Amino acid sequence: MQKSLFNFKHMHDLLKGKKGIIFGALNSSSIAWKVAEKAHEQGAVFTLTNTPVAMRFGELDELAKKCNSEIIPADATSVADIKNLLEKSMEILGGPVDFILHSIGMSLNVRKGRTYDDLDYNYYMKTLDISGLSFHKLLQLARKLDAINEWGSVVALSYIAAQRTLYGYNDMADAKSLLESIARSFGYIYGRDKNVRINTISQSPTKTTAGSGVKGFDGLIDFTERMSPLGNATAEECADFTIALFSDLTKKVTMQNLFHDGGFSSMGMSFKAMNQYNKSFDNPEELD
Amino acid sequence: MQKSLFNFKHMHDLLKGKKGIIFGALNSSSIAWKVAEKAHEQGAVFTLTNTPVAMRFGELDELAKKCNSEIIPADATSVADIKNLLEKSMEILGGPVDFILHSIGMSLNVRKGRTYDDLDYNYYMKTLDISGLSFHKLLQLARKLDAINEWGSVVALSYIAAQRTLYGYNDMADAKSLLESIARSFGYIYGRDKNVRINTISQSPTKTTAGSGVKGFDGLIDFTERMSPLGNATAEECADFTIALFSDLTKKVTMQNLFHDGGFSSMGMSFKAMNQYNKSFDNPEELD
Amino acid sequence: MQKSLFNFKHMHDLLKGKKGIIFGALNSSSIAWKVAEKAHEQGAVFTLTNTPVAMRFGELDELAKKCNSEIIPADATSVADIKNLLEKSMEILGGPVDFILHSIGMSLNVRKGRTYDDLDYNYYMKTLDISGLSFHKLLQLARKLDAINEWGSVVALSYIAAQRTLYGYNDMADAKSLLESIARSFGYIYGRDKNVRINTISQSPTKTTAGSGVKGFDGLIDFTERMSPLGNATAEECADFTIALFSDLTKKVTMQNLFHDGGFSSMGMSFKAMNQYNKSFDNPEELD
Amino acid sequence: MQKSLFNFKHMHDLLKGKKGIIFGALNSSSIAWKVAEKAHEQGAVFTLTNTPVAMRFGELDELAKKCNSEIIPADATSVADIKNLLEKSMEILGGPVDFILHSIGMSLNVRKGRTYDDLDYNYYMKTLDISGLSFHKLLQLARKLDAINEWGSVVALSYIAAQRTLYGYNDMADAKSLLESIARSFGYIYGRDKNVRINTISQSPTKTTAGSGVKGFDGLIDFTERMSPLGNATAEECADFTIALFSDLTKKVTMQNLFHDGGFSSMGMSFKAMNQYNKSFDNPEELD
Repeated sequence: MQKSLFNFKHMHDLLKGKKGIIFGALNSSSIAWKVAEKAHEQGAVFTLTNTPVAMRFGELDELAKKCNSEIIPADATSVADIKNLLEKSMEILGGPVDFILHSIGMSLNVRKGRTYDDLDYNYYMKTLDISGLSFHKLLQLARKLDAINEWGSVVALSYIAAQRTLYGYNDMADAKSLLESIARSFGYIYGRDKNVRINTISQSPTKTTAGSGVKGFDGLIDFTERMSPLGNATAEECADFTIALFSDLTKKVTMQNLFHDGGFSSMGMSFKAMNQYNKSFDNPEELD
Repeated sequence: MQKSLFNFKHMHDLLKGKKGIIFGALNSSSIAWKVAEKAHEQGAVFTLTNTPVAMRFGELDELAKKCNSEIIPADATSVADIKNLLEKSMEILGGPVDFILHSIGMSLNVRKGRTYDDLDYNYYMKTLDISGLSFHKLLQLARKLDAINEWGSVVALSYIAAQRTLYGYNDMADAKSLLESIARSFGYIYGRDKNVRINTISQSPTKTTAGSGVKGFDGLIDFTERMSPLGNATAEECADFTIALFSDLTKKVTMQNLFHDGGFSSMGMSFKAMNQYNKSFDNPEELD
Repeated sequence: MQKSLFNFKHMHDLLKGKKGIIFGALNSSSIAWKVAEKAHEQGAVFTLTNTPVAMRFGELDELAKKCNSEIIPADATSVADIKNLLEKSMEILGGPVDFILHSIGMSLNVRKGRTYDDLDYNYYMKTLDISGLSFHKLLQLARKLDAINEWGSVVALSYIAAQRTLYGYNDMADAKSLLESIARSFGYIYGRDKNVRINTISQSPTKTTAGSGVKGFDGLIDFTERMSPLGNATAEECADFTIALFSDLTKKVTMQNLFHDGGFSSMGMSFKAMNQYNKSFDNPEELD
Repeated sequence: MQKSLFNFKHMHDLLKGKKGIIFGALNSSSIAWKVAEKAHEQGAVFTLTNTPVAMRFGELDELAKKCNSEIIPADATSVADIKNLLEKSMEILGGPVDFILHSIGMSLNVRKGRTYDDLDYNYYMKTLDISGLSFHKLLQLARKLDAINEWGSVVALSYIAAQRTLYGYNDMADAKSLLESIARSFGYIYGRDKNVRINTISQSPTKTTAGSGVKGFDGLIDFTERMSPLGNATAEECADFTIALFSDLTKKVTMQNLFHDGGFSSMGMSFKAMNQYNKSFDNPEELD
């Protein structure tokens, strides 16, 4: 009988006994959605949160039911909302949490079609606040409320635009740089004081609702797919990696930005991508 | 007779015919001050700028006289002020500029003693605005006004805190990360459109008026001095390197963060620093 | 009853059904030893290997018994030995493997006290061969023999000396740079052809038999302990992380150098290390 | 009259009074050739060196005449030859040198068409010896003979393959990683002992005799040209940058790998490159 138990594909208990908070699930294509499903499979209990507006458009109720979780709406830029989220989560879950996923990003400059050399600075500050500073607010409040247990793990989702400029990614590149810096800066403090680790995952471009908003996204996805020896990492694979970072297997990994991208970040040029690129010149008039 | 000419120590003409704008000179210990002196020696003409308040406390008039420059006060967070600065500079200098130095940074959280886990978010946004976003405002306005010539060079001063967390550097670390990201993001656009290059210099900790504000600064300076094979880089040496980046010798260097630190950034541990550190244990009761 | 099953501390099956090869276990302080123990706990079967000389001094037999593994001696610089190792392993394990740990490093220049500015070049080539090239030989032979299954995972142990110079680490720094480059170069090919991922772990300085050989090691360990917000990572924690990299949770992580160091790599200066350093000046005559 | 002097385009004296050694000039497309020309213009005196075989195929005599330099043949892997080169250079130039350019690289595996998963290990060791270890031999001998003056500057040419894998670059990627590591490792020692700085320039792919040997080079050159906001850096521009690194303007830059690539290294995707890539799909059957 013991054997048969282990034949279940997901019969691990990597997060057994762990409590958490998951930001940013919108629908089943969201990375945060997959993280919630897998955290549930691994024995974790957690609350879910997103903005009130995201909850109207999304399908968070379905996920909450599936994972036996409660939803606590919060505007991640609001200190009061984050405070409420942390307090309610501790109440519901019966104490401080062990893991948090921050999967939040939004740029009004991108949405409104303002290019990087014609930014609206109110939008810009909003981009930084939503996509970067929200992470600091979460961590500062968690620290003040002592809302994360010793050896807890916090993960935020980032993108290689924090290191390398991509056409069209706009002010989100700056926001991701800020986010990764906050992970390091607070990672030092929270690690020193409470052994809490803080990392970012730099994920392949992913066809989520958020990712799809970036201009010229399909061409980029094709390029990174051909450049990456293992192909682009999917949302589901990203969730697997996130589980590893929440688990006790990674207790001494902190202040890192971890590329989860099928190898893209370490590629200069692949055969497949070069080969495809060269096809663009088949038309003789290109050959100048 | 030709020979004697060259015996003058600074008889180069590396910036001959070049026009520029230099932000951030306060007094003779400022890096920007040294840059102005050296740019003048190398044949450049330029305007100087700083905030109205800095001009009251500083000695900018003396520098202006020395370099035959005009001063245009500007709050670097004010789009209107930056616009005025660029327009006036072009008027005074007779056209678009060839180089700009951005040497601006300030954190009210640091000044007011708010630690990184107890930040005031209004101060934080101000830190980002002054120390990071001001660079974007400058570049965006310059682009709109076409205020930088083809193959112009823009340099902003940064610090290794953008990559590695230092106790006490606080939210300035996040601001420097943002600054370096803006340099990359705008470096792409301004390079593509107008061959303007944008880089940051990551300078050793320097005993300027700004640098001295950071907590525990003397110990850090001693440590980095012993860690760096060439010792800490001085403000004057930083100015030399800045001149190289403004000159035509570096036309294809862009979107880079360049460490000017006597080798510190590539050191894990030096003999001198380890030796000094080990002296801290001479007292037997430390040896636990 | 189901519940009680999961109360066993290590009742995971993260590597259930997986086969592997583990290089470099010497005694119970070795990282490779801990990896073997944990891989065994997680349901893997594997062969063990080390050099004939290491096997005389080490206690590999004890580990083999514990893990129900066979030992196949091999000189990692010998193509013939590696070939034999791979073939025997496939024979014993019943087919290609799913994971390999490369934990090999040795410098005769270090052992013989030759400093980096007085290297013996025969020793140097030997250092590169043992500590770097052996990884290529292993991968090239595995590729030719098709000895690694689809989605297999290969990990080599590295050190931050590959990026930052440490007094006394000598030519091992160059060897680790080479090792990490080989991981990237072959990671591309093996990923593209067979979905095999190849990564290096950059581990904290660790008091293993190998680590202890480096000059001034105790002072360094103390410094990195105080610099790292989570403290130095132990050999056992490194083994946990290795298990995560062997598991299916990290399928799209490849060509990466992953810092497992309690945060050290992202630190510029901690309060604790600065505080300790400053004690070295308590003696007034130091204060010049 | 003074004014007219300065109207000469290259009437700087950046390297006036400096002595040097330049490796690797073959013909007028070589980066080393351009460095020699520009160093001469800037007032330096220097010796030239290359292998005996390169001297038969190349046009080094012409360069030597132009720069009033002597040629000292040397196999860069031979300690005896390097010793002779350094001694002869000091004799000819009247003392220790102030700068050295190392521009050496060769892979028999590339030449003989051995792919990275089918390397010949004798060739591999030769690649490392010629392209990497030769730099250590040069530095170690220079240190022993005290052949470089205080505040001297040593530059070696590298390529981004040291960080990111490129199809076809083969074992030269590993050699460049090794080269950059040697620059750091020795940069520490030579900086600490004698204030000599050691850096690598990571140059755009360049159509030199050496560069042209790499497979699929033209497509890559086109791609990097479109990716880089300033376009690929030319050999001549690389020489300019090298002059800056030899000059006193960069005295505190050491142990760095400096990207001189028109911005390529900081790009994730440009509009131009994406646009060109997307043309490869104009043919409908590609659109699967």
